[in-house]
Amino acid sequence: MEYAERMKEIKSSSIREILKFTFQPGVISFAAGSPSPLTFPVEEFGEISKEIFASRAQEALQYNITEGYPPLVDKIVQYNKKRFDMGRDFDRTLIVTGAQQGLDFFAKVFINEGDVVICENPSFVGGMNAFKSYGARMIGVDLEEDGIDVNRVEEILRTEKKVKAIYLIPTFQNPSGITMSAKKRKEIYALAKKHQVLIVEDNPYGELRYRGEDILPIKAFDEEGLVVYVGTFSKTLSAGMRLGFVVAQEELFSKMVLAKQVSDVHTPIYFQILVDEYLSRYDYSAHIKNLQGFYAEKCDAMLTSLDTYIGDRMQYTRPEGGLFIWCTLPDAIDLDAFTRRAMQEKIAFVPGYDFMAGSTDTCHELRLNFSIPTEEQIETGIKTLGTILKEMNQ
Amino acid sequence: MEYAERMKEIKSSSIREILKFTFQPGVISFAAGSPSPLTFPVEEFGEISKEIFASRAQEALQYNITEGYPPLVDKIVQYNKKRFDMGRDFDRTLIVTGAQQGLDFFAKVFINEGDVVICENPSFVGGMNAFKSYGARMIGVDLEEDGIDVNRVEEILRTEKKVKAIYLIPTFQNPSGITMSAKKRKEIYALAKKHQVLIVEDNPYGELRYRGEDILPIKAFDEEGLVVYVGTFSKTLSAGMRLGFVVAQEELFSKMVLAKQVSDVHTPIYFQILVDEYLSRYDYSAHIKNLQGFYAEKCDAMLTSLDTYIGDRMQYTRPEGGLFIWCTLPDAIDLDAFTRRAMQEKIAFVPGYDFMAGSTDTCHELRLNFSIPTEEQIETGIKTLGTILKEMNQ
Repeated sequence: MEYAERMKEIKSSSIREILKFTFQPGVISFAAGSPSPLTFPVEEFGEISKEIFASRAQEALQYNITEGYPPLVDKIVQYNKKRFDMGRDFDRTLIVTGAQQGLDFFAKVFINEGDVVICENPSFVGGMNAFKSYGARMIGVDLEEDGIDVNRVEEILRTEKKVKAIYLIPTFQNPSGITMSAKKRKEIYALAKKHQVLIVEDNPYGELRYRGEDILPIKAFDEEGLVVYVGTFSKTLSAGMRLGFVVAQEELFSKMVLAKQVSDVHTPIYFQILVDEYLSRYDYSAHIKNLQGFYAEKCDAMLTSLDTYIGDRMQYTRPEGGLFIWCTLPDAIDLDAFTRRAMQEKIAFVPGYDFMAGSTDTCHELRLNFSIPTEEQIETGIKTLGTILKEMNQ
Repeated sequence: MEYAERMKEIKSSSIREILKFTFQPGVISFAAGSPSPLTFPVEEFGEISKEIFASRAQEALQYNITEGYPPLVDKIVQYNKKRFDMGRDFDRTLIVTGAQQGLDFFAKVFINEGDVVICENPSFVGGMNAFKSYGARMIGVDLEEDGIDVNRVEEILRTEKKVKAIYLIPTFQNPSGITMSAKKRKEIYALAKKHQVLIVEDNPYGELRYRGEDILPIKAFDEEGLVVYVGTFSKTLSAGMRLGFVVAQEELFSKMVLAKQVSDVHTPIYFQILVDEYLSRYDYSAHIKNLQGFYAEKCDAMLTSLDTYIGDRMQYTRPEGGLFIWCTLPDAIDLDAFTRRAMQEKIAFVPGYDFMAGSTDTCHELRLNFSIPTEEQIETGIKTLGTILKEMNQ
């Protein structure tokens, strides 16, 4: 069968294979990309759900408009304004079925085959694949401690003809945990303005800061409608309900509405009502504060274990938020061999290959997740990794 | 801003404008495309939902696998086998976020720009737009009383080089209400086999038969994996939960899984558990029978009113199921003038333009829906249309 050209670059990510391994009994998994379900407001949602079924079930189970449930859209607009100083008169907010769908629709309405998208290297597999699945050529730019190498971005913008967008996860980046500084955010926006390319700002982890001061999203100083902001409730309320949103200038918004109409018509209204009611009745900021506390402990537990059992045998980032720590093995240690040895000891993590925008021949990186394992599992798992590293280093 | 080529053919459908009009007080609307929310099993869903929140909320609110909740997938496979004699060893079933998403993903993995898709004329706007949004060229083939003109399909297959698929809604077609005969289903399958093109069989209305005998889907005699079958619970359980499925041969299935991974990751697991539990605990066939009875009365009410108040002033189909009646005005009556006159009298319907695969200069058709208005509204509305027709005919 002859498939479409656009899908040829997309391969099933190796993460899925690793995840199958993590279902085996006794495996300690640092491989997850998900928030802890222990943080979901299960009781509050249960209460609201009961009321929806009692009083407005027919509405919640019927078709609805593509743009999203207006009261929820309004709340998101207000929240983003207050929390992130974000959203101008020319901006509109579209409810999507998870942030991933926001990236998908952006690519669908904006990317022609062969267009270039600049991204961080490493970057989020799902984001890169969304662009690639419409024929984009991804150019990865290495991350520095304070975010993407802006000089390199400028060089690409000067030399490449078909750059359409810059895809960034500025805050607690996946997989690196790195946060782009305020200075670099301004520089990158200035570059986008000068070269008139769009920035796609993916911010799933923005609420999960455990230390340090918030930095405003790039969208906060977008005076020209050049930034398409993608947000989600996946990391704060529920990942499985698939509720995200896109903030984009009006024209791009209306193109994305068309894309959504022919893709899934609308995001289930039941979950939109559920979240709208949740935001009306409960203190979302207090909830966020609770989950920051929950994750801070886990993040600290992993950093402490890394310091104790691994030390300078491996480099690792010290994220101020998010769900991930990014590790770099010494050159002498082969990533595949290390991954296999860890799996023998029933420890799982995600090797870095899938996150690389370009060639992956010499990858020495791996991603550790701390949101799902218990603190005991974190200590046991990291200790074991330390032992393996010691053995392999000899 | 320079958008992607592929979206240029997609325009916001005029149906959406009409729907805005229908929200005005006092308007009788025959414009809907939705099932009646009165038929949704609200109480049963409410009971199950309560239990999900009490005992497995964390699972229901967390990420899940792209392919779909395995127990639900199994139930759909069993049901399709028993009910429609459908599904071979090489087939796999994928859960999608509404049948629309099944069409979208099929087009994404299979259509290159310029490929031809043959469809019925008229056909479902959402289906045609999904194909067009990946650059397909739609060729519409007129419907006869027993379905698509098979000879014309054969002629196109002989003369067009790049035909990739035939898109069909064989049972209670939207918008025409026409059902393809068993004979034509076999003929069209033989043609697909001979020319090795795929058939996309969209069957949202298959359970809504009010009269006559069931006819097996084309997928029932697909021995070669040439038919991609798209089904949904939207017309039987809930449209707003967006729960559909695709049955396709393994290789195409796995490509569509990739497309889904980069689009919305997975369909909300909460609704998949909800429907799985519903199918376990309740008698789905009895539910279907009830809703057939509910719609049969409305369909009959509309046909009776048409016979009484319109008669031979306008042609109309007599569907044996589904949600729509398709009407053809006499050549002398201008569709736009008729639509405007109806709107002045607070009656809404969908003029046929959007359903036409090709040029729409001389459209005289319109679609009437009977699932949403009450029987009183049906009688009042059709009577008014009769009066307008009489006036305009003078």
